[in-house]
Amino acid sequence: MRNIKIVVEYDGTDFCGWQVQPNGRTVQGTLDTAVFKLFQQRPTIHGSGRTDAGVHARAQVANFKVESGLPAATICKGLNSYLPADVRVRSVENADASFHARFSAKSREYHYTIARRQQAIGRHYAWFCRYRLDVKKMRRASVYLLGAHAFEAFSKHNAKEKHYLSTVEKLAWSEDDDTLVMEIRANRFLHNMVRIIVGTLVDVGRGRLHPDAIREILDSKDRDGAGTTAPAHGLQLTKVYY
Amino acid sequence: MRNIKIVVEYDGTDFCGWQVQPNGRTVQGTLDTAVFKLFQQRPTIHGSGRTDAGVHARAQVANFKVESGLPAATICKGLNSYLPADVRVRSVENADASFHARFSAKSREYHYTIARRQQAIGRHYAWFCRYRLDVKKMRRASVYLLGAHAFEAFSKHNAKEKHYLSTVEKLAWSEDDDTLVMEIRANRFLHNMVRIIVGTLVDVGRGRLHPDAIREILDSKDRDGAGTTAPAHGLQLTKVYY
Repeated sequence: MRNIKIVVEYDGTDFCGWQVQPNGRTVQGTLDTAVFKLFQQRPTIHGSGRTDAGVHARAQVANFKVESGLPAATICKGLNSYLPADVRVRSVENADASFHARFSAKSREYHYTIARRQQAIGRHYAWFCRYRLDVKKMRRASVYLLGAHAFEAFSKHNAKEKHYLSTVEKLAWSEDDDTLVMEIRANRFLHNMVRIIVGTLVDVGRGRLHPDAIREILDSKDRDGAGTTAPAHGLQLTKVYY
Repeated sequence: MRNIKIVVEYDGTDFCGWQVQPNGRTVQGTLDTAVFKLFQQRPTIHGSGRTDAGVHARAQVANFKVESGLPAATICKGLNSYLPADVRVRSVENADASFHARFSAKSREYHYTIARRQQAIGRHYAWFCRYRLDVKKMRRASVYLLGAHAFEAFSKHNAKEKHYLSTVEKLAWSEDDDTLVMEIRANRFLHNMVRIIVGTLVDVGRGRLHPDAIREILDSKDRDGAGTTAPAHGLQLTKVYY
């Protein structure tokens, strides 16, 4: 059996997220169909992680096992010919038998885009925030999130989760006239973690929270102390590190 | 009567272009409706120029005359509250009585985006070109288009056009890993002019035409010598100069 690693870009706008579900168009389900059409086989497609409805990916990584002698470039073209325009396979390569898109991943990077003015062009890829934001304060607050912490306060409660530990390796803000982008890399992301971090840092940026409050919220492990969950469509999975 | 100047952004994907037509959703028609809802008046809305179906605008300029004492900021908010998400009024100001969005314009600037790989994200804003393009050659060819020329060969024939003269003030290419962007500014754009220029320069970039051929095509005044008309969705009206 060949273990195929693919890098996939998708526009999450018209998807009910990554994971297959009985009713609703999903990225995994769409890939399943294309893989079946190309190989006449139905392997399980493992993604590096789920993305929620409306979340985009520039470089989601997935793997699946098939019997096939097709060259990687042909698989790439073949899959793209069966996929709709909102999912594109960027690259295909042969992976070691032990490679698993999810379990082998060392860390993941997401970008969250905040639009400073209401945009018509690209409105599906940015969250319009009506408040004037003090980016300096947001940067100051962000520092508290760097490193290893328990992120209960910044994730959706999930009874199945064994622990809420995550190590944030990078949390940087960049800005131009129209947008503010948060880049965050961590070894593990809890459910809604990026979006709750964004919602809370926006509260800091607009003056509702003091930057130092982030530390207290982290320590409290209380979701209610953090801000709202920023909308899905501002979020993009940009890279998975192995 | 007040003469109101507005700057409008729109995503052309779901529009049959700027100009009102009996059947089909147009930007002008959509603005007409919002203006009527806000002012209960039906002035003619003059755009700086028409854009074709699928073409986007970051900063289209328009003007219209109304009787109203509303502050400019209130007009901006009011219009946006009546407009759909794919049209946004970016700014509103009072203009001199003589200001006319089309006749007062000195020049216009467009950007055309070519995607170097098939993109899912942002696919409505870039034309995917499958050929490897030699940007140096395209830049060399572009120089022939700068300055004042008759652009018969680079525009759609129109019996009503008195002449095909246009002065191209800027024609620059910028590139990154994923895209190639042509920025072009001219005092006047003939129908399909930007898109035919892009189609022809792509022929140069992929080696089908020698850069010097652009000069001959210009001189020939023959549309058949130029390349295909690049698709509408790569095109954005980015600025109107007064």
